Amino acid sequence: MPGVAARKNQERKRENAMEQPAADDYAKERYGVLPLIQSQDKPDRVLVRVKDLTGEKADEVVWVRGRVHTSRAKGKNIFLKMVFEWVCTNCILHILLRIKENICQFQIYVISLAEPRLPLQLDDAIRPEVDGEEEGRATVNQDTRLDNRVIDLRTCTSQAVFRLQSGICQLFRETLIQKGFVEIQTPKIISAASEGGANVFTVSYFKSNAYLAQSPQLYKQMCICADFDKVFCIGPVFRAEDSNTHRHLTEFVGLDIEMAFNYHYHEVVDEIADTMVQIFKGLQERFQTEIQTVSKQFPCEPFKFLEPTLRLEFPEALAMLREAGVEMGDEDDLSTPSEKLLGRLVKEKYDTDFYILDKYPLAVRPFYTMPDPKNPKTSNSYDMFMRGEEILSGAQRVHDPQLLTERAMHHGIDLEKIKAYIDSFRFGAPPHAGGGIGLERVTMLYLGLSNVRQTSMFPRDPKRLTP
Amino acid sequence: MPGVAARKNQERKRENAMEQPAADDYAKERYGVLPLIQSQDKPDRVLVRVKDLTGEKADEVVWVRGRVHTSRAKGKNIFLKMVFEWVCTNCILHILLRIKENICQFQIYVISLAEPRLPLQLDDAIRPEVDGEEEGRATVNQDTRLDNRVIDLRTCTSQAVFRLQSGICQLFRETLIQKGFVEIQTPKIISAASEGGANVFTVSYFKSNAYLAQSPQLYKQMCICADFDKVFCIGPVFRAEDSNTHRHLTEFVGLDIEMAFNYHYHEVVDEIADTMVQIFKGLQERFQTEIQTVSKQFPCEPFKFLEPTLRLEFPEALAMLREAGVEMGDEDDLSTPSEKLLGRLVKEKYDTDFYILDKYPLAVRPFYTMPDPKNPKTSNSYDMFMRGEEILSGAQRVHDPQLLTERAMHHGIDLEKIKAYIDSFRFGAPPHAGGGIGLERVTMLYLGLSNVRQTSMFPRDPKRLTP
Repeated sequence: MPGVAARKNQERKRENAMEQPAADDYAKERYGVLPLIQSQDKPDRVLVRVKDLTGEKADEVVWVRGRVHTSRAKGKNIFLKMVFEWVCTNCILHILLRIKENICQFQIYVISLAEPRLPLQLDDAIRPEVDGEEEGRATVNQDTRLDNRVIDLRTCTSQAVFRLQSGICQLFRETLIQKGFVEIQTPKIISAASEGGANVFTVSYFKSNAYLAQSPQLYKQMCICADFDKVFCIGPVFRAEDSNTHRHLTEFVGLDIEMAFNYHYHEVVDEIADTMVQIFKGLQERFQTEIQTVSKQFPCEPFKFLEPTLRLEFPEALAMLREAGVEMGDEDDLSTPSEKLLGRLVKEKYDTDFYILDKYPLAVRPFYTMPDPKNPKTSNSYDMFMRGEEILSGAQRVHDPQLLTERAMHHGIDLEKIKAYIDSFRFGAPPHAGGGIGLERVTMLYLGLSNVRQTSMFPRDPKRLTP
Repeated sequence: MPGVAARKNQERKRENAMEQPAADDYAKERYGVLPLIQSQDKPDRVLVRVKDLTGEKADEVVWVRGRVHTSRAKGKNIFLKMVFEWVCTNCILHILLRIKENICQFQIYVISLAEPRLPLQLDDAIRPEVDGEEEGRATVNQDTRLDNRVIDLRTCTSQAVFRLQSGICQLFRETLIQKGFVEIQTPKIISAASEGGANVFTVSYFKSNAYLAQSPQLYKQMCICADFDKVFCIGPVFRAEDSNTHRHLTEFVGLDIEMAFNYHYHEVVDEIADTMVQIFKGLQERFQTEIQTVSKQFPCEPFKFLEPTLRLEFPEALAMLREAGVEMGDEDDLSTPSEKLLGRLVKEKYDTDFYILDKYPLAVRPFYTMPDPKNPKTSNSYDMFMRGEEILSGAQRVHDPQLLTERAMHHGIDLEKIKAYIDSFRFGAPPHAGGGIGLERVTMLYLGLSNVRQTSMFPRDPKRLTP
């Protein structure tokens, strides 16, 4: 019978893992190692999670499942720390106990053993960095965390970060479905690199080659041309960029929106901005515990925003930066340091961590960006910023095939490669605009964290593909 | 100024596109082609969508945006068909009208022109196939539809299919979030092909190679080991399988669940089955219009299910099939025809289109499947079926590194390649189970459609990578 040898072996291992109880151990009937749970039985016994132990259960006799975290042993479960010195940290236990100040009744069984040596200590992993520096106590560096992500994700900080990230997705969708948007699923394997072929990953596709989509934009736009009117999607986005910065990943999660409008792309900008505001408000209301937990390890100012969202035009931003001593041409894009400085200036002047920068120079935006009809050097495009870093880039798209062809030629793009894209607009296309939001960046900046790898469960960058 | 030449050109084209109005055209001030909408203005004028025109608006003067579908011109907007014979089908219009039986007031402007010849006719695209055969009237074949997906997606049938699909995702998440699950995001680019390397797409990753994930399973399991307890994700899944069938795609959307349990994997099976039931009920309640619309073109019996879900064990299914004349060994897997036959037999006997088949032979399941402790030839694994086709495959997973190693060796898998996977369980892992659901299959089978390409917006198979 498969598994028998392994289980025997394992039980032996378990016995060895426990130190021999003292000869005068009065409790030896009350603990042990259970056989591997292979769904042998369906006992009636209710099993409570440690986190669900509340005052209401005082004086009840309950069975509890918990993991041994010496770092968490305090208050009413201090006894665990004492009794279980023979059990290695990170094992999983079933415990029968009466929750009272003087515990007089308990049974404890191991259901999953951990290796005796952990590659990182949870105590160290949740220590604020400033403590570490001041007191010389250990913290855990990022590569050690990421190499041992399963353990690092057990910290209360990681749990809070990713529960809040789940909340961002939920609020994004709730808000958009409420607004009448339809969720779409767009393909990630594509036949041609739509924006000219730079920074794209190549896939072997049977006997030929394909590419990984750098964004769902073309497909969102096709849905608009197919009269879906308002669409969104959440999915992976791939960028073969050799950027080793705090905010670039080669694979990240895009929250994407596209919407037909009646007269002016600001109709779309307002919907996107309101969606962000609903996310910020929802996080404040529903995820206060998570926000507080993260701020214990990574202290930061609460995230501030205005309602309605502040919208600045590019020339206004330029003037603020120039006044602060930055030298820039009218048609230059913002550098990362300029973006951060602008964030600080906007915060001082308007007291908000979130704003829209509208009307970028046409020259710095992609070929499909709609030119501003009133100013030849300007475009109907916008970025959105959180704490001075870009989290969304968007625009009114050119929906006329002839103008699109002209703009592509102006950018020196091979028309043959984007033929399918241009052809999508030949059978009647409504004016539309949209944008793509980086989920990991939103999570990072909302919580005031400093590296996007803290907000990607299993980050991918030019140097990291594991775990 | 960019765009000027193109716009001029385009307006000329638009003028040519319209047939010359007759000399005695009394309404010539009331129609025309508007300049390209580049967000020039923000008029106060409210613009209603055609689908939102209701009786409440009778006798009001409203501006409407609509697309010219001659196929849809009936009842109160029959006049469009007559007046607009000079405008090509699929243009987008702004129309001022008073909704009354005798329309006496209107203005009509084109805001987006379509090419005069459409590659497929919407009338043909929504015709039930049986009509086509009986009456000799045209229908549209699948490749023509998929080659011109933007137009095909405009049919009321396609709109209904994909709005319902959006609803499936929404109901799946709503139910799981309600049950305390956390949404996770798992990487699609992975460093090693976890299940041995068959059917996996290779990606060029900077100077080395990587792979596209065949499922998020490893990452879901790592989240369970990291104490997230109950997780789900929705995302693309890649299979480099050269299968050209009605139900295989090389890229599809997986709805994935993984959950720690207390004593028995049926705790998880029950949660998954209940999630499916909540989806079926939600679709019935919220998407009745869509279901009716699709059934006009593709007639089918309403989807039936039981509450709680029927769970059969493999030997029971085997007995039913043998009684129906199928020859099968005790440890054989079900063939596709056997699955379909079983679906019919179960429907006859239990009157349900949805059921669980539990306790598959160990020999036909992957190495990480937990063996049944009471029967060496059986495993703690299950499939779920809709209308006789598999939509979910799942199991209790082996959470003990030693047993996992033994099982992998039994399957002849190179341990070096799955080291990271096995190591995930070395620091305490709770017993857990899960499964993956194919979104396109659920949509197809719920609606009684016959090809998964009808329920994938932009399907990918060995022969199709476009659009």
